[in-house]
Amino acid sequence: MTEIITYTPSPPQFAYTFGGRPPVAQIKPGTLVAVFTEDCFGGAVSDVDTLPTRVCTMPYLNPVSGPFFVEGAEPGDTLAVHFAAITPARQWGVSTTFPHFGALTSTSHTATLQAPLEERVWIYDLDPVAGTVRYRARNSDYVVDLPLDPMHGTVGVAPSGFEARSTLTCDTHGGNMDTPELRAGTTLYLPVFVHGALLALGDGHARQGHGEASGVAVETAMYTTLTVEVIKGEVNAWPRIESDDAIMSVGCARPLEDAFRISQDDLVRWTAELTGLDLLDAYQFVAQAGQAPVGNVCDPNYTMVAKIDKRYLRGAVPYGGAHQRLRQLCQFGIEPGPV
Amino acid sequence: MTEIITYTPSPPQFAYTFGGRPPVAQIKPGTLVAVFTEDCFGGAVSDVDTLPTRVCTMPYLNPVSGPFFVEGAEPGDTLAVHFAAITPARQWGVSTTFPHFGALTSTSHTATLQAPLEERVWIYDLDPVAGTVRYRARNSDYVVDLPLDPMHGTVGVAPSGFEARSTLTCDTHGGNMDTPELRAGTTLYLPVFVHGALLALGDGHARQGHGEASGVAVETAMYTTLTVEVIKGEVNAWPRIESDDAIMSVGCARPLEDAFRISQDDLVRWTAELTGLDLLDAYQFVAQAGQAPVGNVCDPNYTMVAKIDKRYLRGAVPYGGAHQRLRQLCQFGIEPGPV
Amino acid sequence: MTEIITYTPSPPQFAYTFGGRPPVAQIKPGTLVAVFTEDCFGGAVSDVDTLPTRVCTMPYLNPVSGPFFVEGAEPGDTLAVHFAAITPARQWGVSTTFPHFGALTSTSHTATLQAPLEERVWIYDLDPVAGTVRYRARNSDYVVDLPLDPMHGTVGVAPSGFEARSTLTCDTHGGNMDTPELRAGTTLYLPVFVHGALLALGDGHARQGHGEASGVAVETAMYTTLTVEVIKGEVNAWPRIESDDAIMSVGCARPLEDAFRISQDDLVRWTAELTGLDLLDAYQFVAQAGQAPVGNVCDPNYTMVAKIDKRYLRGAVPYGGAHQRLRQLCQFGIEPGPV
Amino acid sequence: MTEIITYTPSPPQFAYTFGGRPPVAQIKPGTLVAVFTEDCFGGAVSDVDTLPTRVCTMPYLNPVSGPFFVEGAEPGDTLAVHFAAITPARQWGVSTTFPHFGALTSTSHTATLQAPLEERVWIYDLDPVAGTVRYRARNSDYVVDLPLDPMHGTVGVAPSGFEARSTLTCDTHGGNMDTPELRAGTTLYLPVFVHGALLALGDGHARQGHGEASGVAVETAMYTTLTVEVIKGEVNAWPRIESDDAIMSVGCARPLEDAFRISQDDLVRWTAELTGLDLLDAYQFVAQAGQAPVGNVCDPNYTMVAKIDKRYLRGAVPYGGAHQRLRQLCQFGIEPGPV
Repeated sequence: MTEIITYTPSPPQFAYTFGGRPPVAQIKPGTLVAVFTEDCFGGAVSDVDTLPTRVCTMPYLNPVSGPFFVEGAEPGDTLAVHFAAITPARQWGVSTTFPHFGALTSTSHTATLQAPLEERVWIYDLDPVAGTVRYRARNSDYVVDLPLDPMHGTVGVAPSGFEARSTLTCDTHGGNMDTPELRAGTTLYLPVFVHGALLALGDGHARQGHGEASGVAVETAMYTTLTVEVIKGEVNAWPRIESDDAIMSVGCARPLEDAFRISQDDLVRWTAELTGLDLLDAYQFVAQAGQAPVGNVCDPNYTMVAKIDKRYLRGAVPYGGAHQRLRQLCQFGIEPGPV
Repeated sequence: MTEIITYTPSPPQFAYTFGGRPPVAQIKPGTLVAVFTEDCFGGAVSDVDTLPTRVCTMPYLNPVSGPFFVEGAEPGDTLAVHFAAITPARQWGVSTTFPHFGALTSTSHTATLQAPLEERVWIYDLDPVAGTVRYRARNSDYVVDLPLDPMHGTVGVAPSGFEARSTLTCDTHGGNMDTPELRAGTTLYLPVFVHGALLALGDGHARQGHGEASGVAVETAMYTTLTVEVIKGEVNAWPRIESDDAIMSVGCARPLEDAFRISQDDLVRWTAELTGLDLLDAYQFVAQAGQAPVGNVCDPNYTMVAKIDKRYLRGAVPYGGAHQRLRQLCQFGIEPGPV
Repeated sequence: MTEIITYTPSPPQFAYTFGGRPPVAQIKPGTLVAVFTEDCFGGAVSDVDTLPTRVCTMPYLNPVSGPFFVEGAEPGDTLAVHFAAITPARQWGVSTTFPHFGALTSTSHTATLQAPLEERVWIYDLDPVAGTVRYRARNSDYVVDLPLDPMHGTVGVAPSGFEARSTLTCDTHGGNMDTPELRAGTTLYLPVFVHGALLALGDGHARQGHGEASGVAVETAMYTTLTVEVIKGEVNAWPRIESDDAIMSVGCARPLEDAFRISQDDLVRWTAELTGLDLLDAYQFVAQAGQAPVGNVCDPNYTMVAKIDKRYLRGAVPYGGAHQRLRQLCQFGIEPGPV
Repeated sequence: MTEIITYTPSPPQFAYTFGGRPPVAQIKPGTLVAVFTEDCFGGAVSDVDTLPTRVCTMPYLNPVSGPFFVEGAEPGDTLAVHFAAITPARQWGVSTTFPHFGALTSTSHTATLQAPLEERVWIYDLDPVAGTVRYRARNSDYVVDLPLDPMHGTVGVAPSGFEARSTLTCDTHGGNMDTPELRAGTTLYLPVFVHGALLALGDGHARQGHGEASGVAVETAMYTTLTVEVIKGEVNAWPRIESDDAIMSVGCARPLEDAFRISQDDLVRWTAELTGLDLLDAYQFVAQAGQAPVGNVCDPNYTMVAKIDKRYLRGAVPYGGAHQRLRQLCQFGIEPGPV
């Protein structure tokens, strides 16, 4: 029977960087890990009258749970992280505007002399049974139910080169990728840069539009069940995702076309490797068959995903079947909920 | 009964700019127009041994059929163009690499000192009955059938400000938008800048991946049936698209985040107008409910589309129901094929 | 003795595009041409209470004088345009903010939901004798004299590919480059795309900061004396500039790094050609010895200039000495002033 | 008499991050500090046959000397670092191409499928007496002397938010800014994020072209003499530089226009503060009077500098005269050389 370990951090235990922190626990490949994660505001914004800038202080934004020391993970390996379940831990989610943050405002970097947009808070009702996220306008009676589609915005390992990076950004180590593709049922492949990998995660979204244009998704605390595998001696420059149906490469960069280039370039090379196509044949193939889901266009690094359906890959199995193995391992009666 | 006019240009009749050309025909709103369009190479690349740079000469690339003078269209109006059918006129399509063009190569503008990639041609088999586009690798025996999904890369009107713009680029007048969203069954809304609008179209794609990463889709000649309506006294800064299920705003720009910003900003404002939401409520709503299909990341201007499902708009009807009207008008026995 | 022809357009004679217009006059290489150019507002903003958006209507912004048909200029040639004198035609210049235009505001393309900055006008006193441009704050008594440094923001020919381009933008045909390097005493090299080249110019600046951050320089009408030479059978992809001391390549693009890449790439190749260095040696050389004056970071295309001192080129003479020839030709008693 | 402390690290003492390292020494404001810094290759590339990729291993690139704990520096203060002397410690400098790094090649982020440029090394002769840096072509006999103009590419403090950042990048904490403006005689103002500031520096350049287009300047070891002052309770978001003649704001970001925007926005606000101009008057003023020296267009973050001459500021004195004070303090007989 599969072992389960649970981890529910208290507020002082949250981390705000990848790297630069000692591990909070050690996990064995194949063990199920049930983790509680807080929302990006640390749970501090729970009604529409509480403005984030009043209750949150930099750098105490976007807390992550972890880091976990993964047994057997060494630099040069790949860490496969499979998400068995991602379940909202509350019946509400929160979104806000935040001064000079988001795609449709000037920011600290796209600096202008204009005044910031109004800071405003929206509270969403989450209904796991109906599978909905309820939007309520603040200045009218407009109410719409959107599909619940839980995901983690932020999952990563300790970065390379002795760096410690804010949980607000993403890069080759993963981090704040903010792509809706990171749902339950997928496997995330991350390069291992340090002894033990030091995996951490947080920033649950009940759902997120493409691009996270307002800078903040429907943020909520999560109960998440995951398991990991260490793929020895194989490593890729950038994060990758595998679902039952597709393989995906993740690019994190500014400007947005570089995030696109990174993700497409990686998917072309991965496809070539999996299919035996030469590089130009793979380029042509991905260019016609590929998708390009937008992750975020608001964070310090933007995220683009390059994606191709597995049915076009004629049976190729990435990473020696890690995804299938982890998926199966997790099907021994995972029930999401308080842990 | 609906009138049908047909237009099949001979080679010297193709246009290579939007604007700067006299109309080739006059069309009445409500008339069905059946148009033949050539592929982006003017049909000159029909086997794998014919390299585009040998047989094509700038600026004779990406020919469009038209322009058509639309009766009653005046500056300040919107031209609604409904695509009843977009049908490949050949049983093959072509794609290529092209020196210093595409997303995964340096280009004339992202200039580097590196040698260009090899120029290579792929011929695809189109099977309208099976609904497939067959990819064949050049340097291996890899063969995969992809879904046939015909669209026009290039549809536009004469630009504003006395400009004439190459059919290779896109902007507020439409043009080479290269978004897979421009399928049969959709209505494209274009701002009218000159008397008669001067609509033209071309650049049929049997299918296109997101971003058109290699710079060239599965290019083919098309038989296309469309009809138009003039929406008087109403005009938007950028092109918009409506399907049965969604409304979309199109942004054309570099860098890619500006194309994203334009499209999202326009969709936020359009949504606010259709729903009565104030601007910030609409921003929040679109940010959670919206999609962001990537158009092209290879042309002189990149294209991003911002999209929202109509079911979230509580019955709002854009442009006084132009899409429904045009769609219905076209259902009187349109049969695609040689005209 | 050198012939002089003068051209002072009346308001209806101004052009607002490069291309798409018949020539207003024919000029012979070697002839001195004395041209009056209006400011970018057509002279309509002459006091601080006249807001541009009240008195200017799109597309009637940035008028140019011309186009001039240059005898002997054919596609594939280079047009050398030497500026003998650029002299303010008025004792005042004007600058303004303009809603959603400029580097430190969101714009039509870097679209945000924020309100535009206040529209405000500044009138500068030009003193040709003292060589100063006097800045006066609007909301305080701050007054500073800056050096008078007259230049043309906009000089170009008809574009390639049957295009007509707004005088607000720049590209391979020149146009609204807005670089302070285009002073009297320099020679501008432009590719010829159409029979007669169709040269036009305008947008005089009494001075301009690097980047033209506010979107508008110290705009003024100019009396300008120039002469041209046609360099047969030699053509470059982008505009180039030569002064007594330096050679320069001009890149026009977005994002700004692409304008940088174009200009540096072109200067590396030009330097290789002039010095016999191989491409990599020239790259290294320009990278250590080169300068990169910023042109504009506000127009539809940004401009970067790559520049290298002639003293590092060991006597190499570009374009067979065209600059020296034209400079000498102009020294026969040019006196700037009303023509 | 002014106290002098010297610091010459041995190889294992070099740091490769800002932040994440304990201090190597404690320095008092007003003390002269004489520091030896290695070149960006750690001195390992000393002849043209030694390729960097053969002798350097990531992340052991761009070593810095330090960090130094500055007495009295607390978060919320500004650290003023005055460079009294920056003197080459060797008679040679080195530059190279580096695979997929630099402005005129595709890179890890501007990813393409093209082969990298050839890796090549150039050795320069430095002549402090003649004040020259001698360029020698590798594939011809082209030799040119360029002016010696020593500077530090990399100077910074520990970043905010518990981050540790590679010495290869720059951000609000300074770091690898690579601007030629950081010469001897200038004062750099850095925000203090941690107790003791933790100042470090390295990456000496005998000279650097604007933009550092090839990715590598004329790299050399340096003997540098500096002194610091802590400006209490005053802090700016971004690095600033002051020389005898000018004040400058530094922006580090991608894309390049964001680096431009940051630097201009900061200079506008700083100018407003120093002159009493309102924000729009300051914007107009800087836009006409300002300069925009390009720093680097090759590192993970690009650098732009916004600069304005002090003579236009009517006697305003930034930071209470820190620059003058530090400059004077250093004039008590600083002699550069081995320490």
